[in-house]
Amino acid sequence: MESATYEKTPLNAVNRVRNRAFYDRALIHGIVDATPILHVAFNPAEPEDDPFPIVLPMLGCTASFPGGKSSADETTDPDIYIHGYVSARLMKLPKSDEHAARGLPVTISASILDGLVLSLTPFHNSCNYRSAVVFGYATVVTDAAEKMWAMETITENIIRGRWENSRVPPTQTEMTSTSILRVRIHSASSKVRTGEPIEDRKDLKDDALTAKVWTGVVPSWLQWGEPVPTQANKVPKAPEYLNQWVSEENSNGKEKAVAAATS
Amino acid sequence: MESATYEKTPLNAVNRVRNRAFYDRALIHGIVDATPILHVAFNPAEPEDDPFPIVLPMLGCTASFPGGKSSADETTDPDIYIHGYVSARLMKLPKSDEHAARGLPVTISASILDGLVLSLTPFHNSCNYRSAVVFGYATVVTDAAEKMWAMETITENIIRGRWENSRVPPTQTEMTSTSILRVRIHSASSKVRTGEPIEDRKDLKDDALTAKVWTGVVPSWLQWGEPVPTQANKVPKAPEYLNQWVSEENSNGKEKAVAAATS
Repeated sequence: MESATYEKTPLNAVNRVRNRAFYDRALIHGIVDATPILHVAFNPAEPEDDPFPIVLPMLGCTASFPGGKSSADETTDPDIYIHGYVSARLMKLPKSDEHAARGLPVTISASILDGLVLSLTPFHNSCNYRSAVVFGYATVVTDAAEKMWAMETITENIIRGRWENSRVPPTQTEMTSTSILRVRIHSASSKVRTGEPIEDRKDLKDDALTAKVWTGVVPSWLQWGEPVPTQANKVPKAPEYLNQWVSEENSNGKEKAVAAATS
Repeated sequence: MESATYEKTPLNAVNRVRNRAFYDRALIHGIVDATPILHVAFNPAEPEDDPFPIVLPMLGCTASFPGGKSSADETTDPDIYIHGYVSARLMKLPKSDEHAARGLPVTISASILDGLVLSLTPFHNSCNYRSAVVFGYATVVTDAAEKMWAMETITENIIRGRWENSRVPPTQTEMTSTSILRVRIHSASSKVRTGEPIEDRKDLKDDALTAKVWTGVVPSWLQWGEPVPTQANKVPKAPEYLNQWVSEENSNGKEKAVAAATS
């Protein structure tokens, strides 16, 4: 049985402000699943030509095939499934000989801003946030059943209920032109900051300063607006599962951000 | 005089869905400045030990020293100044011999989600977003005047008015323990998606389907909540510049997301 935390190694060790670093699996998987846009970084096939990592914004979530979502499971590693929306370069790479065995090394980062932390002085300004970095090996999913399951899992991770409430299954052509990557997790870490600003003791004793400068946290969250129908839409009202999802996401987002401000 | 667009090369070329790719300087700089958390990717000092790029979430914005914010300038390249909040590893690297001349190659990505795009079928689900990727060379800012100016510029890019309304300038100790990186832009690109879902012609003609499946866009934006004072705060009400900033950011964010849904 694996541990509830990722082993701390030189690769994933957080070296600054160590008391904000966490290696809990459930926490890390939860941050990945709650982040709408993941940033996937990897090196180009011929790095000698080009010293810059490639970074692509992609959609994805943690999951275990066959099985399901496993963020709640604290002791086993799920994979991360990502949808190759903008990633022609990425999708091609794991098929190369060099990476065929283990997969392409990728670094997936997920960051959620929970608020701005405003101190008496700019030096102590900060952010409340939840941030995860996952290192893993990416391969293209070729098994048809796993691919279909991953498409459903990624869709449902975004909007619960959407899959069964739209035209499924995908056609053969749609399946063929969709690429899904499975990333086996090698290591991971997270950083979380909550609460008030740190202050300099001298600033706190400066009555003229504290009388003048407001200090506190401005909470922030991703807000979802009223669904806007397409011109071709024939359904009179936005469906209940969608309105409920919008309302739940908004109240959960706000609640988490405000809790982070005061915790 | 430079052009209003970044030259398209194999490095920054967007290879998928090319009609969503843009190379306009003003657009790219604007996306970087509007993104609260930038993801900075680079390779470790000894990549043979470790095939994974390092990715750090950081704060920063475009600016030209001496001068100011230059997102509005379409023909010259600003630098990107980033604040080394969580980045002991990054701050150390550009001092090494190997990178001393040009700087450390970094890839900065900035992504803003403007909404979820819901089609008749999951294959055509998408996101409205603005995303920029900038490739550049990072060096540590050592000049005291430039460093102070960059701290102010980054602070003001987040909340306009906060610098002058708090205890400034930073002390010598604060200056010394703050690290700022300047990234000279080498190349960049952006992708932007707006509007309704694409649909399969066959799906659109399926009356039973269109009668059942709602299609449209759920706009999204970063929402700022009511400022939460610290326990030590002595100022009775949140200041006007802060309330105004919250209100403007929220209405601009919503307006952009709704415009993206219908454009």
